[in-house]
Amino acid sequence: MKTHKIAVLSGDGIGPEVVSETIKVLKVVEQIFKYNFEFEEALIGAIAIDETGNPLPDATLQLCKDADAVLFGSIGDPKYDNNPNAKVRPEQGLLKLRKELGLFANIRPIKAYESLLGKSPLKRSHIEETDMVIFRELINGIYFGEKFTSEDGTHAYDTCSYHRKDIEEITHLAFQEAMKRRKKVMLVDKANVLDTSRLWRKVAMDISQEYPEVELDFLFVDNAAMQLIINPKQFDVILTENMFGDIISDEGSVIGGSIGLLPSASIGTENALFEPIHGSYPQAEGKGIANPMASILSAAMMLRYLGLEDGAKAIENAVENAINNLIVTSDLDETSDYSTSVVANYIAKIL
Amino acid sequence: MKTHKIAVLSGDGIGPEVVSETIKVLKVVEQIFKYNFEFEEALIGAIAIDETGNPLPDATLQLCKDADAVLFGSIGDPKYDNNPNAKVRPEQGLLKLRKELGLFANIRPIKAYESLLGKSPLKRSHIEETDMVIFRELINGIYFGEKFTSEDGTHAYDTCSYHRKDIEEITHLAFQEAMKRRKKVMLVDKANVLDTSRLWRKVAMDISQEYPEVELDFLFVDNAAMQLIINPKQFDVILTENMFGDIISDEGSVIGGSIGLLPSASIGTENALFEPIHGSYPQAEGKGIANPMASILSAAMMLRYLGLEDGAKAIENAVENAINNLIVTSDLDETSDYSTSVVANYIAKIL
Ligand SMILES: CC(C)[C@H](C(=O)O)[C@@H](O)C(=O)O
Ligand SMILES: CC(C)[C@H](C(=O)O)[C@@H](O)C(=O)O
Repeated sequence: MKTHKIAVLSGDGIGPEVVSETIKVLKVVEQIFKYNFEFEEALIGAIAIDETGNPLPDATLQLCKDADAVLFGSIGDPKYDNNPNAKVRPEQGLLKLRKELGLFANIRPIKAYESLLGKSPLKRSHIEETDMVIFRELINGIYFGEKFTSEDGTHAYDTCSYHRKDIEEITHLAFQEAMKRRKKVMLVDKANVLDTSRLWRKVAMDISQEYPEVELDFLFVDNAAMQLIINPKQFDVILTENMFGDIISDEGSVIGGSIGLLPSASIGTENALFEPIHGSYPQAEGKGIANPMASILSAAMMLRYLGLEDGAKAIENAVENAINNLIVTSDLDETSDYSTSVVANYIAKIL
Repeated sequence: MKTHKIAVLSGDGIGPEVVSETIKVLKVVEQIFKYNFEFEEALIGAIAIDETGNPLPDATLQLCKDADAVLFGSIGDPKYDNNPNAKVRPEQGLLKLRKELGLFANIRPIKAYESLLGKSPLKRSHIEETDMVIFRELINGIYFGEKFTSEDGTHAYDTCSYHRKDIEEITHLAFQEAMKRRKKVMLVDKANVLDTSRLWRKVAMDISQEYPEVELDFLFVDNAAMQLIINPKQFDVILTENMFGDIISDEGSVIGGSIGLLPSASIGTENALFEPIHGSYPQAEGKGIANPMASILSAAMMLRYLGLEDGAKAIENAVENAINNLIVTSDLDETSDYSTSVVANYIAKIL
């Protein structure tokens, strides 16, 4: 079996805790299915700033470029958040990494697990059978457009910019995914206000011609934020720009019962990165209470991307088994005192 | 009693239906409390485009400038939404009106009515006792920054721009409101990515010095979109920029059980406009099923703004009475077949 080089970027907060549990699970999968992983760790985020002054050291970037896939934890540290003057911030590391690796599509599946329906703040009847995937554009838009703060600090701007080519590739991916699913794409935008949104609509309409079986619909982002809660079942594939995708995918996490469950894949032409959508969650750091499932499910997405479908399926089944047996952390069951590693060990054991 | 000149802009979709019911209610209030209203109607939105080619005719703008308050319905028409090439769109009328009248603060109260707790997609335990106000900046940000689409239609951008002075006034309003409430202001932003958000943080921190009793906190917009659903009770006053406010206030409507309940006030130094936060809802147009309560409650906010507190309170009590007795439209009670005017008549009767 081919050796798969995996760059491991644990980052900040609960990142290292969930990633080390995930690697434990991956090592078991490796044995069972005779895979061959080569894990190599590198610094990113606040910890990289502390140690090197740079949130994305060159060595880290090079390692990621050379790897077959990147397993990512989380980054961010409150000490930077409330300091509007900080010149270097952990998030710059992740954003630069996404850009340099060309990870144009961030794919975030959201589904309601039957045995967790009771855990969501939403009523069972509203979320039952919800199964959607959000395709969020990841390396353009207001995250990467020209930014400016005046010397005297009284004026600032951010620019949301899109070229047709930035939109095309992810739109194709979304339509291709819809073909494998319920054949519905919903473009979320603000076309009644934004020029960039109207460009998205135009490109989506053009590309939809190549997928005559797929139904293309449009929803303004304000309405989408509401519809996601009142009727999440209506969505199959959601396609959207960077910032809107950030907001509605975090919002969508309430459907599954916990953001600690949601994995994501960030795909480029030559590279791919897999990360839980929860952030660094500093309040939980070091307490052993972080839910490792989002990271473990991200690893399953990684295996699938690497063509290791058996391993991916095995992990997903094991996580579902753990959920069904309520071997979960306290975010999913208030009465649970299972720690991060107890949950991960259970998943590893029943693989 | 002084005469209050009220400009009536019904607009599109269900706007005319809910506004005419609201005026019915206002006329009863006028009698009871011996107020003196002078209503004058004018065109805006899609209907204004149809009749004059301009979504905000000069006569409409002038009428609004001269009025003591503007009562607004809604605008928008699907025939413009899916036409990325439309040069003139109904929304331009509303945006220009907001800008020209200097309506810098859009104030959106969200509360859970006891008797409607069962109607929300959210579990009762999550929304009970929720009572927050969103202060959304309304005349800057990405709505009004420089916009561009290239001739060949392959490139577009939108600019989110803020000056310190654009942020100061609404921030003061938010803190003043918090002083009358639970003394908490939550700034929602994306300060880990956007320069404009960091400017907001800086201004909010500075101004908070003048309100030492008020606790100022910060939340990234993605996290806020999640927190609004998992723990809405935590919020007292939310302060945010234009686009984020648009998204989270629509999302917040799920707490009350229906967007058909939510009023808003848009305040400037010299003018003020009152509108339901639901849009033109074209699917419901002409069916008599639109919920008039958001518009009627907006009128209550208008009376309070005009210093007519007795009338405001009377309307709010009457609406609450109607809700408690389930004299509501079908968005709030599936089994109800009360029409827009039956509900409004009930409210007018028990004033
Ligand atoms: C950490 C932050 C920059 C990032 C983003 O906004 O993209 C995070 O919220 C995410 O969604 O991955
Ligand atoms: C109609 C539209 C331009 C408007 C907005 O986005 O501001 C609406 O959604 C609102 O919230 O009042």
